Amino acid sequence: MTIEKLSDLGEFGLIRRLQQQAGGREDLVRGIGDDCAIQRQDSARELLTSTDLLIEGVHFDRRWTGMEPLGRKCVAVNISDIAAMGGVPKTLFLGVACPPTISVAELEQFTRGFLAEAQKYGAVLAGGDTCASPGPLMISVTVQGDIACGKALCRDGAGAGEAIYVSGTLGDSALALTLLQAGKGPDPQLLSRHLTPAARVDLGRQLSDRQLATAMLDISDGLLSDLGHILAASGLGAELELAALPLSGPFSKVLREDPTLIDLALAGGEDYELLFTSPRQDLARAAGLVPAVTRIGNIVPREGLQIRCRDNSLYHCSRKGFDHFS
Amino acid sequence: MTIEKLSDLGEFGLIRRLQQQAGGREDLVRGIGDDCAIQRQDSARELLTSTDLLIEGVHFDRRWTGMEPLGRKCVAVNISDIAAMGGVPKTLFLGVACPPTISVAELEQFTRGFLAEAQKYGAVLAGGDTCASPGPLMISVTVQGDIACGKALCRDGAGAGEAIYVSGTLGDSALALTLLQAGKGPDPQLLSRHLTPAARVDLGRQLSDRQLATAMLDISDGLLSDLGHILAASGLGAELELAALPLSGPFSKVLREDPTLIDLALAGGEDYELLFTSPRQDLARAAGLVPAVTRIGNIVPREGLQIRCRDNSLYHCSRKGFDHFS
Repeated sequence: MTIEKLSDLGEFGLIRRLQQQAGGREDLVRGIGDDCAIQRQDSARELLTSTDLLIEGVHFDRRWTGMEPLGRKCVAVNISDIAAMGGVPKTLFLGVACPPTISVAELEQFTRGFLAEAQKYGAVLAGGDTCASPGPLMISVTVQGDIACGKALCRDGAGAGEAIYVSGTLGDSALALTLLQAGKGPDPQLLSRHLTPAARVDLGRQLSDRQLATAMLDISDGLLSDLGHILAASGLGAELELAALPLSGPFSKVLREDPTLIDLALAGGEDYELLFTSPRQDLARAAGLVPAVTRIGNIVPREGLQIRCRDNSLYHCSRKGFDHFS
Repeated sequence: MTIEKLSDLGEFGLIRRLQQQAGGREDLVRGIGDDCAIQRQDSARELLTSTDLLIEGVHFDRRWTGMEPLGRKCVAVNISDIAAMGGVPKTLFLGVACPPTISVAELEQFTRGFLAEAQKYGAVLAGGDTCASPGPLMISVTVQGDIACGKALCRDGAGAGEAIYVSGTLGDSALALTLLQAGKGPDPQLLSRHLTPAARVDLGRQLSDRQLATAMLDISDGLLSDLGHILAASGLGAELELAALPLSGPFSKVLREDPTLIDLALAGGEDYELLFTSPRQDLARAAGLVPAVTRIGNIVPREGLQIRCRDNSLYHCSRKGFDHFS
């Protein structure tokens, strides 16, 4: 079959092709395909780099977000990739293509949010590019961070029998978006999870420093899709317990009215929580892990991803993870 | 006066504001406002980083460029910022927001051009982001390079009495675009300067290694506009000799038919040639500088930028340099 359309190839198919063609270099420890590229700087430190696009009408909707929270979110989702390796964010680069409908005041709200959020994580804006856009507002953010050599947590380190953990709660952001799209005002806690997510930098650093995790990433496309990346990279499978998924109070409340919304916790995306594997079975009670982590299942030696209900029956999630081209 | 519209503030006004707000860090040698940010890596090396946006309908027109040359140009214009500091390009990050009208085959032509051009400069693609675009094709490229500590050529190093040099020839790209927009087919040499410009990496390295230049940048917005950045950063003025501007054969030929087109060499933009100052008066004959450089004027102690004709009268360029918001 000749693949002609991007929707047939898919976002991850495209990335795999680029990965095959891109080539490498001795000091490039990791290239395309993980949360960050890793480059050796000297005998002690490695440079982490990640770039993100945020496009109006795809990643955000100005009907629902102000420019100041949008600036914050652009930083947090990009720094989340540094958190996902266990690194320390250092330096940001910002590209903004502005449609003529955006005023200077709005752009200043955006940069105020961007700079405040950067400062929160100890990162500095060091450069960028600005231009006019004949279409939507388009933002690109590149973050550089660093980490001690060999300490970065990648996607391919999971081992059979290990526990699978996730930080915080799942589905809040996707539920907020679903409610907004349905014309309902979400609970403020859900809304803030969608508009101003937090990057789990401190947790990521603890997990890498204390060598508590074997594989890690941040959940941007949805738990199942992102866990799938760990499983594919590690050549393994997983069993999840549906009842173990950590849910917030506001999420649980809405879920009681419509139990099918559990699929938002499985595949809604934009959680920006850390998903990781560990040989340790006791991390849910481990001291100093903030936010708390929850054990949601196990890595198994056979391929595939199964979700078990309390009665041991298999659960089928009818929602797919986010693919930009499908 | 309260500035309300981006067109009043202008691209460079916006960048100045961000520069004032962004803050710094001990290892951040240069932040916003030069061709690249400079970060100290260790006692010997500095990390150079630059990010560029390329937006369909602003930076390129798919009626005139194929996807393979577009991929090449995206790399070259970004690496040109590394050349402008005298550095060595190392690593690239690519963001692509794709409208649904782009096929997989076209995207593969783009990445083929991108990767081939990267390889030409010894740089490796190490990461990126892909998503759908509801508007035009939007590309972001980030490049990292390196340079020996203290060797980077910045915009603020010019001294009074120094000579001003430019590499290659000026105005070819802008003339090609002007002819395309007028429905005329430009000479292939002019066209290639517009569609597939070269980054002057080898020349930039020689100038920094041999300490031949005091201030440098690459010409993207036009000679006058970009020289203005050196003058503003160095707190000085300049006198240019109109007759000294280096022009290609095809450019000179069209110029004979319409002498006002000389303004394209002064302010057309997208030359991606290096513009630099030097206390040395003899670099136009210096061995090993490829492409050749031409002395086009002098730095003077008083502010302002004057262009002199052969008869010593002042020339007024009626074209302004490129500002994305004006």
